[in-house]
Amino acid sequence: MDEITRQALLFDFYGSLLTEKQRAIYDLYYQQDLSLGEIGEIQGVSRQAVHDLLKRTEELLNYYENKLALIRKYLAGKEIIKEISQRVSELRDKYGEQNTEKIDILLKKLDDSW
Amino acid sequence: MDEITRQALLFDFYGSLLTEKQRAIYDLYYQQDLSLGEIGEIQGVSRQAVHDLLKRTEELLNYYENKLALIRKYLAGKEIIKEISQRVSELRDKYGEQNTEKIDILLKKLDDSW
Repeated sequence: MDEITRQALLFDFYGSLLTEKQRAIYDLYYQQDLSLGEIGEIQGVSRQAVHDLLKRTEELLNYYENKLALIRKYLAGKEIIKEISQRVSELRDKYGEQNTEKIDILLKKLDDSW
Repeated sequence: MDEITRQALLFDFYGSLLTEKQRAIYDLYYQQDLSLGEIGEIQGVSRQAVHDLLKRTEELLNYYENKLALIRKYLAGKEIIKEISQRVSELRDKYGEQNTEKIDILLKKLDDSW
């Protein structure tokens, strides 16, 4: 997993545990791709303050992942769902769509439920 | 869901975010079923201190569930997995075990992966 994907997942899973300010700066840096200096100007603080807040936020998100492992579990679950889909697809090829359609819908629902 | 089940799930999902002391007292009260007074004796603190620590711990666990909703998602996912299992079971009745055995194993694995 590349760093950008990882940061996006960390934010998706644990962003709700951050303060509003942490969320704003994290979003500007990782999602809007602004520089530390640009974020400092927007927020009215120094480049160094942005850097420190960002570092603290990253540490916090990694702390939560170390404790709860939601990303690890999510990715593992996704792999299993993919395997099930493949097996169901084999059954569909063999016995026709009407028997497996509902399972496909449920698997999609399961995948989206995280 | 009854209160004991709910407290057990909260502890399962978010216990890793508690301090050692919070975990110990929560366990003695909700899992070992000791009274506040008994826990106070074991921990060498007053009954009132145990009460306050327990209340704070419950608030913290509920805070995490409000933010992350892991229990809600877990129960929803479990329901979907159950539905898929039923559909797969219908296919098994229709087309024989060898086609669905692997899917059953994967569904079990998925259910355990939380």
